[in-house]
Amino acid sequence: MTTTLAHPTRDEIRIAAVLQALADPVRLQIVRELAVHEEGISCGLLPLGVSASTLTHHVRTLREAGVVWVRPQGTSRISSLRRDDLDALYPGLLDGILAARR
Amino acid sequence: MTTTLAHPTRDEIRIAAVLQALADPVRLQIVRELAVHEEGISCGLLPLGVSASTLTHHVRTLREAGVVWVRPQGTSRISSLRRDDLDALYPGLLDGILAARR
Repeated sequence: MTTTLAHPTRDEIRIAAVLQALADPVRLQIVRELAVHEEGISCGLLPLGVSASTLTHHVRTLREAGVVWVRPQGTSRISSLRRDDLDALYPGLLDGILAARR
Repeated sequence: MTTTLAHPTRDEIRIAAVLQALADPVRLQIVRELAVHEEGISCGLLPLGVSASTLTHHVRTLREAGVVWVRPQGTSRISSLRRDDLDALYPGLLDGILAARR
């Protein structure tokens, strides 16, 4: 059984929700890692130092805000950054955040 | 008696705090208005539709995150956007947010 996860369309993405999703150190770290792994990655493989349930919460928050795509692959879930959508809606936002050293 | 309000220096500004401060519809509206009023303005003059105490809370959140300067002027407090600091730390971030239509 394949579960398709809900994602907002580009038109449904809202800046306040995107900023809220990004305003957390762990979620920022996930976004930075996904910017490197452009093809997508199972977030469980990332060196984040949080529990599986905490990670699930953070990835869901990012997905529901429209920051990441999450697709099932076997028993894993592969996450990837919605860079095209975010760059189209908020040009510069993601680059500004990724450029941040702190 | 003049009260000088505390502001983080540029070095003390953190991206997670900035994003948290911006992740609110009223605070985003304040930032958009301050982007227009470059010389600074008393936020009480802005058409925000919130109570004075709510406005005080929002402006304090923006100030403490390093998003705005607030300076006393007579019995008012004049707020202005810390565009130079934010553009230097997170190039593109503010423009991306200000470009957002939603």
